[in-house]
Amino acid sequence: MPVIAVDAMGGDFAPDDVVKGVAQVSLHTEIESLLVGDEQQIQATLDRIPYNPERIAIHHTDEFVAAVDDAGTGIRHRRRTSIMVAARLVAEGRAQAVVTAGNTAAALAACARYFRTIEGLCQVALCGVFPRQTLYAGQDPLALLLDVGASVRCEAADLVRFAVMGSVYARHVSKLAEPRVALLNMGSEENKGGAVLIEAFRRLKNQPSVNFVGNIEGHGLTKGTADVIVCEGLLGNVVIKLLGAMADVVVDSAGTGRRENWRHKLGTFMLESGAGRLRELAAYEDYGGAPILGFDRLMLRLPGRANARSVENAIKVSAKAVCSGVVREIAAGVERL
Amino acid sequence: MPVIAVDAMGGDFAPDDVVKGVAQVSLHTEIESLLVGDEQQIQATLDRIPYNPERIAIHHTDEFVAAVDDAGTGIRHRRRTSIMVAARLVAEGRAQAVVTAGNTAAALAACARYFRTIEGLCQVALCGVFPRQTLYAGQDPLALLLDVGASVRCEAADLVRFAVMGSVYARHVSKLAEPRVALLNMGSEENKGGAVLIEAFRRLKNQPSVNFVGNIEGHGLTKGTADVIVCEGLLGNVVIKLLGAMADVVVDSAGTGRRENWRHKLGTFMLESGAGRLRELAAYEDYGGAPILGFDRLMLRLPGRANARSVENAIKVSAKAVCSGVVREIAAGVERL
Repeated sequence: MPVIAVDAMGGDFAPDDVVKGVAQVSLHTEIESLLVGDEQQIQATLDRIPYNPERIAIHHTDEFVAAVDDAGTGIRHRRRTSIMVAARLVAEGRAQAVVTAGNTAAALAACARYFRTIEGLCQVALCGVFPRQTLYAGQDPLALLLDVGASVRCEAADLVRFAVMGSVYARHVSKLAEPRVALLNMGSEENKGGAVLIEAFRRLKNQPSVNFVGNIEGHGLTKGTADVIVCEGLLGNVVIKLLGAMADVVVDSAGTGRRENWRHKLGTFMLESGAGRLRELAAYEDYGGAPILGFDRLMLRLPGRANARSVENAIKVSAKAVCSGVVREIAAGVERL
Repeated sequence: MPVIAVDAMGGDFAPDDVVKGVAQVSLHTEIESLLVGDEQQIQATLDRIPYNPERIAIHHTDEFVAAVDDAGTGIRHRRRTSIMVAARLVAEGRAQAVVTAGNTAAALAACARYFRTIEGLCQVALCGVFPRQTLYAGQDPLALLLDVGASVRCEAADLVRFAVMGSVYARHVSKLAEPRVALLNMGSEENKGGAVLIEAFRRLKNQPSVNFVGNIEGHGLTKGTADVIVCEGLLGNVVIKLLGAMADVVVDSAGTGRRENWRHKLGTFMLESGAGRLRELAAYEDYGGAPILGFDRLMLRLPGRANARSVENAIKVSAKAVCSGVVREIAAGVERL
């Protein structure tokens, strides 16, 4: 069973919720967690809850990155932050993957400092996940979008590599035999989107290791017709953040519509569970986190608001990915291109 | 009062719903409409409904563009289609603006053939509108996004011109004294988004005719903090289509969530009016349509599913824009840059 390094200090509810998630994993699985952060705070939380001490270790560090710190605040050079130390421990072989709900720029910086970029790759990718309609029972309710912000603009070759990386990840984590890959574009025809996207379409069509289903448009994203969607970071970043804000807005709209109507008033009350379901959808990012792909080690990111259950899920997903050799298979796939 | 040329044959419910919208305008305003399309079909619809014959004229043409025709099907060269003829009539001064719910590529092609691009402009813009939270009573519930597909990639100078054009339009149509303009980007800091967006940010900040409020991210779009949002066509196209699909998905999600729960079942029933409100939101594009900006004449586009009320609204909006001299003011604004 792999050891997962967990950034105990990253996220809005750290270290409390992170530690609680780790405790759950220790009780219900054989995965070992290595909590990286302030030992006193971590132990104080552990002392209040049930956990299996044989499956939890603590690596003390007294620095951490705040959610608001950006690349300009020197996070790249602060080597004793919990996320940097977690990545270093993985690089040293003391753990096999990192889970963090902390600052994204710091997570990327830690990967860049301690991990190696897979050979032949020019651009790593931040992945995002989002909910979509399921077309058959058992289909993963989440699709994978990459890149959502490691890059700004991309070349056609980068997009093809994203397709390979995303396919491998989806195959192992979402248990899809042949994940359908689409190119995010402004039209369905292959001559749309300018030179880079036209070239990417052509290459993807001729790429035997990718089950390419063509271009996907904005309104197609949530339809469930593709499992992996590739695009440049600027586009993916705007899309993933818009999707994240989506459910919130509609919950709000439903609340403000026709308040004068007694049926609506009563309906809103009755629908409390439905509204809960919508809020749950809004929190979809929590389920297992989203990977940073393209390095020789794996890191899974959770949103800052991640709770104990999200942390628990992300640790399980990362262990699954480590056990099934996702990174090795990605490297092989990129090499074959 | 201006004359508005109306493409009677464009849209899923043409000519019936288009003609009905025109009839309403003829009864309740002093705007004159020039219906362009199959005279027999148009007259047949008019014969069944009340209308004011003094404010409606028909210009017969027997060709039209189908919704599924794309740029490859030669729509650029078919000069007798209803949209081409409508644009020609405006160019000849027989009407002052065009309203169409037809094919977007055909609409752009008609503008390009019969209208002139405003001097100093390299790139015209398709606008899109979308609903956002209102921050104060009386605020327009819709924001303007441009470009959503006339361009693919843009230069910084194009984005600044979009900002000027969108500001002028919002000032007149949404009655905002100083529309807040934002740049769609992958971060709020001014160093985000690559060379073009960094340069656009710098220029917009120093542009006195634009009330620039900085970068806006994906999750900010629906928050109501900006009235006009500028971006390149590839990005805007994906965003506007995703926003269009938004309400549909959530209506669906609300319906499928926790069906086993009796409270939810009853709530869904009670909320029929609420669901109606959501569907109404999903149809927001209908309200008044969205302009094509950058030509010396105005064209307003409606989505294909536009109904009679949408057509009626779009005719009123276009008359308002014509009367307030939007195009002239845009030309002056672009010249001052």
